[in-house]
Amino acid sequence: MSDTAYPVTPRNKVKRLHERGRYDRETVHAILDTAMLCHIAYVIDGQPYCTPTVFWREGDHLYWHGSSASRMLRAQKPGLKVCLTVTHMDSLVLARCGFNHSVDYRSVMAFGTAAIIDDPEQKARALSAMIDRFYPGRDATLRPSSVQELKATMLLGMEIEEASGKIRAKGVGDEEEDYALPIYAARIPVHQVLGEIEPCPRLMPGVARPEGLAGFTPGRRLDEVMTETAALVYAE
Amino acid sequence: MSDTAYPVTPRNKVKRLHERGRYDRETVHAILDTAMLCHIAYVIDGQPYCTPTVFWREGDHLYWHGSSASRMLRAQKPGLKVCLTVTHMDSLVLARCGFNHSVDYRSVMAFGTAAIIDDPEQKARALSAMIDRFYPGRDATLRPSSVQELKATMLLGMEIEEASGKIRAKGVGDEEEDYALPIYAARIPVHQVLGEIEPCPRLMPGVARPEGLAGFTPGRRLDEVMTETAALVYAE
Repeated sequence: MSDTAYPVTPRNKVKRLHERGRYDRETVHAILDTAMLCHIAYVIDGQPYCTPTVFWREGDHLYWHGSSASRMLRAQKPGLKVCLTVTHMDSLVLARCGFNHSVDYRSVMAFGTAAIIDDPEQKARALSAMIDRFYPGRDATLRPSSVQELKATMLLGMEIEEASGKIRAKGVGDEEEDYALPIYAARIPVHQVLGEIEPCPRLMPGVARPEGLAGFTPGRRLDEVMTETAALVYAE
Repeated sequence: MSDTAYPVTPRNKVKRLHERGRYDRETVHAILDTAMLCHIAYVIDGQPYCTPTVFWREGDHLYWHGSSASRMLRAQKPGLKVCLTVTHMDSLVLARCGFNHSVDYRSVMAFGTAAIIDDPEQKARALSAMIDRFYPGRDATLRPSSVQELKATMLLGMEIEEASGKIRAKGVGDEEEDYALPIYAARIPVHQVLGEIEPCPRLMPGVARPEGLAGFTPGRRLDEVMTETAALVYAE
């Protein structure tokens, strides 16, 4: 399944700079799996909202969660159209004219219909899956969720109906004649990196850092850690 | 003006974890000015889209640009409702139960009506302003934009009608009784940092890195550099 492509429709077809568009599951999933944060667009009474949230992927399904109080969740009981977008800005691109200034990036727009996952068992399983997807093996070490906590957790999911990836990774791309101009041009890489882990000050004595967090070392790129943990959890 | 608050309406009122909500211009502008990338939600024929793009702020106005080919821009000639969102994920929060796992973050949702800026002079001025906002003093060093390039640039802007900021910065927040459990808990900071500048391989001999890029040193946080350049450019 992961070697096939998503259908290309007017909704997900990359129109601007279409040569940057990718529709194969391998590329789309790889970009989704580099990230913990996404932005979700949805519409309530004609008004668009763009909400940041933590999400994860299982096959062709995307999941995210939030409190039952939130505006999006209350409105989408019957199923709400959403566009879930993930973006990595990989570098700033300083060209020899304003027009060619740009950024290198990897992004995915995934389209689907969000549904609430109400079944308590399914919810508990998904919450555990989320923890383990980000922090391998962690869920079994935690205090189990209470009935109250599960009730207060609103879990949403959608099947990816269509998706498109978009990648720019070329650095400076100037007009041929502009390269002869005495103007400074450069690519400045940008990475999301981890800092030094700060153990909770109220940690009980003798509680060591679990093995599953071995990959979370200071200075490492978060997108690489996320890719690594996804590969550990989902052997596709 | 910057010491006043945005109106709080049903549209921008923070409902989920409302104690995290901020409406004062100072906080909202500060979060917007840390970023180069935003995500914009808009609706076309009932379908929501969430598009990542580079943006910048001038007072209560936000600007972003793209090619005239893009789906959003073609649809929004008469003015399109948008929600422009900026998010920084500042840390991963590993708690003692699944429910309290979280992330520290700063985010802003800004609501307005996007309009195309068609006037060529206004467009040229805004394009220059964008370059200088990110790279102080850079615009004057560039090959000027051609008429063709200006025509191919679609510039959009909106006044912020309403906005809300949301901040979580507390690290681990467990239930009081859970602190006594022998479970590992921690905060893992995440920062977007600059890498080593890579000058264009086709740079003309003798072209030095401009003074205005002095702040873009390897290892620095992008949000801090953006805040610094915004302060240089806009002395509010």
